[in-house]
Amino acid sequence: MADLTPELLSGIRGDLLNGVPVIVYDFDKREEEADMVFYAGAITWSSINRLRKDAGGLICYVTGSEEARDIGLRFLTDEWKTHPVYNGLIKRPSYGDYPSFTMWVNHVSVSTGISDSDRASTIRELHNLLTDHVINKEEYFHRNFYAPGHVPILASRGLEQRRGHTELVSRLAELIGLPRSMVIAEMLGEGKSMKKDAAERYASENNLIFLEGKDILRA
Amino acid sequence: MADLTPELLSGIRGDLLNGVPVIVYDFDKREEEADMVFYAGAITWSSINRLRKDAGGLICYVTGSEEARDIGLRFLTDEWKTHPVYNGLIKRPSYGDYPSFTMWVNHVSVSTGISDSDRASTIRELHNLLTDHVINKEEYFHRNFYAPGHVPILASRGLEQRRGHTELVSRLAELIGLPRSMVIAEMLGEGKSMKKDAAERYASENNLIFLEGKDILRA
Repeated sequence: MADLTPELLSGIRGDLLNGVPVIVYDFDKREEEADMVFYAGAITWSSINRLRKDAGGLICYVTGSEEARDIGLRFLTDEWKTHPVYNGLIKRPSYGDYPSFTMWVNHVSVSTGISDSDRASTIRELHNLLTDHVINKEEYFHRNFYAPGHVPILASRGLEQRRGHTELVSRLAELIGLPRSMVIAEMLGEGKSMKKDAAERYASENNLIFLEGKDILRA
Repeated sequence: MADLTPELLSGIRGDLLNGVPVIVYDFDKREEEADMVFYAGAITWSSINRLRKDAGGLICYVTGSEEARDIGLRFLTDEWKTHPVYNGLIKRPSYGDYPSFTMWVNHVSVSTGISDSDRASTIRELHNLLTDHVINKEEYFHRNFYAPGHVPILASRGLEQRRGHTELVSRLAELIGLPRSMVIAEMLGEGKSMKKDAAERYASENNLIFLEGKDILRA
């Protein structure tokens, strides 16, 4: 457990702005997963490289649901709940919350979309679009991105509604005064998700800040 | 270049049935990417582990478009072309072909869906559903899977229409007399996709069969 003192928050902000990840574990009895988290405004191809080699899960872009709405995106669960066929596939996962996926995209400038530098480009462009003062964001999004692509966009429902990594890191961004614009991937072990103690050990060995959902909830 | 002789085809079949991957490079001047390919009927958590560590790209399940239709799935490009908002996002990637994505799913039995063993379970269940004599496949699919999840399902448009890895490995399955039910991920290098010669070297060092799109087209 870590107390999110002003000093610690400032350390987290400094690390993220410098392209250094933090590790965020959700909750015992929920997913019980630790995610590696980068600030999208500082993403480079080597961050993607580290996410796929050291974390190993799905590399996702995270923003708020307001920002997603600004570019015309809805939750896929909402989109497909009224779909004549796909509505049959909308169920709650075993850990209880609906997923936060909206869409998978590539920026038009990328080659195939999957390499470290292609995914970094797509994410950097998403970050610029969602944090800059673009007048018609939806129109810009439609002109400069295509779907389906290789970067899933997750949108936060807010911690009152869902307690997933998407909501935790969006809240963390607010706490440190950065835009809700983050990149996450689950830390995996051999066969199973990485256990909490192994994720803590990884953080400590690599000099990374390790946080838990309960720390963020209390802050 | 490899001639797909009966002996080589039988070697490929034997490897895939034994859970050994083959490497398939598409074409010069197209994606110029090599994919690691497993047969879904022989997938285990350690295959997923190898796909994420040695290949590094998106781990996708591949089937034919007829099989996808049997479970009620359409190409997302078709699905979204008539969507009032998302139609703006449907574009051809720089290499020319529309993507072959249909949907991202998890099997209901998984925990969070992303670990090696969870993704192996989802893929094994997809394989069983699509290759067994299930009476109402769409109904079974809706009862036993949920979306959005962590395993993208790619459907082949046939090599006459598209020359991607999806179509190449579906055709390869037909050539060796296996169901169109494969698992693929792009092989990545540092920053960029792995170059053809590096993928060939990986195959040779690991005693894996290396094929090119043109070998499959000529067979």
